[in-house]
Amino acid sequence: MKTLTDYVWFETKQKRELVRITDAVAERVTKSGVQEGMALVSAMHITAGVFVNDDEPGLWADIWEWLQHLCPEGPDYRHHRTGEDNGDAHLKSLLIHHQILVPITKGKLDLGPWQAIFYAEFDGQRRKRMIIKVMGE
Amino acid sequence: MKTLTDYVWFETKQKRELVRITDAVAERVTKSGVQEGMALVSAMHITAGVFVNDDEPGLWADIWEWLQHLCPEGPDYRHHRTGEDNGDAHLKSLLIHHQILVPITKGKLDLGPWQAIFYAEFDGQRRKRMIIKVMGE
Amino acid sequence: MKTLTDYVWFETKQKRELVRITDAVAERVTKSGVQEGMALVSAMHITAGVFVNDDEPGLWADIWEWLQHLCPEGPDYRHHRTGEDNGDAHLKSLLIHHQILVPITKGKLDLGPWQAIFYAEFDGQRRKRMIIKVMGE
Repeated sequence: MKTLTDYVWFETKQKRELVRITDAVAERVTKSGVQEGMALVSAMHITAGVFVNDDEPGLWADIWEWLQHLCPEGPDYRHHRTGEDNGDAHLKSLLIHHQILVPITKGKLDLGPWQAIFYAEFDGQRRKRMIIKVMGE
Repeated sequence: MKTLTDYVWFETKQKRELVRITDAVAERVTKSGVQEGMALVSAMHITAGVFVNDDEPGLWADIWEWLQHLCPEGPDYRHHRTGEDNGDAHLKSLLIHHQILVPITKGKLDLGPWQAIFYAEFDGQRRKRMIIKVMGE
Repeated sequence: MKTLTDYVWFETKQKRELVRITDAVAERVTKSGVQEGMALVSAMHITAGVFVNDDEPGLWADIWEWLQHLCPEGPDYRHHRTGEDNGDAHLKSLLIHHQILVPITKGKLDLGPWQAIFYAEFDGQRRKRMIIKVMGE
């Protein structure tokens, strides 16, 4: 069995930002030498997410709007009594989910033609980390 | 380590349809010969999902209604400027999630008594694909 | 390859309850002897969830309120025609998701500093089960 573990750091310019990471994941899979297996891609923070969807800017705007609607920003979260102001970012992370698992076949990410991988930052402008863990043989 | 990779094709009659796939996954696990491991079941399209829940038709109707409520159809998505009309299907895929991982113990899917696996089509009536990747020993 | 399978039972006092399970998962990882791999943590019931987020009681209250808002309790679910009254618990399980996968590096859970693992019970006061499946080497 082979494994590879790598950490990817982000420091987004915006508080909310979507970062394409398909190539970053593919690069680690190649480096791992794994031909058949899986790659776990998981945010290491609780105010960010990782998801698979279409690489289409109009859709991105739709996704942000939808997340703002279902997990609104506001001053009313109990979490803010700790001094934080990012309650909505925690809920967005739960809704989008913080991780995905990508199948690896014949040494490559086995994704459908329109599947792209994104890191979704919900409370950025500071250094945050994501793990890529590849496992297989 | 053993792995098995298989693709399951769907072409649903309805635009939205729920397909039971527990048996299809179990069949691949048997075929793989894996006794202890995991099976990744993942939609390869961005307008479909895979989930585990109860095999009860009343609940299915509840789930559809809930998804329609939280991810409504409509002409107002920015994504539709590309000529698409399936913005709601992308959001439904994100909400339900596009994949699950099933534990395999003693050569069988290690599911609870009421856990059934479903492929949820949100934009069907065309050929779409799902990957089953079994890994273990 | 090494694997370890263990089942954790819950019988919560409340109908809805959040249980910290980071230590329970870490214990199984140590017991497995796996140095590099992954731990699947998955509810075996369809009215419970497993998620990773902040261990902060104010946030917990926010999460419950949010779940109640997006997946309301009520007498109107079709699922209730079967005699059940837990339609909302099924939807909450779908929204939060019933499983997570934790990376294992150098024999330990490879989580970020604020990542804690929770079992979320949405229909408790009875015995329910969760599987921990560790895989790696």
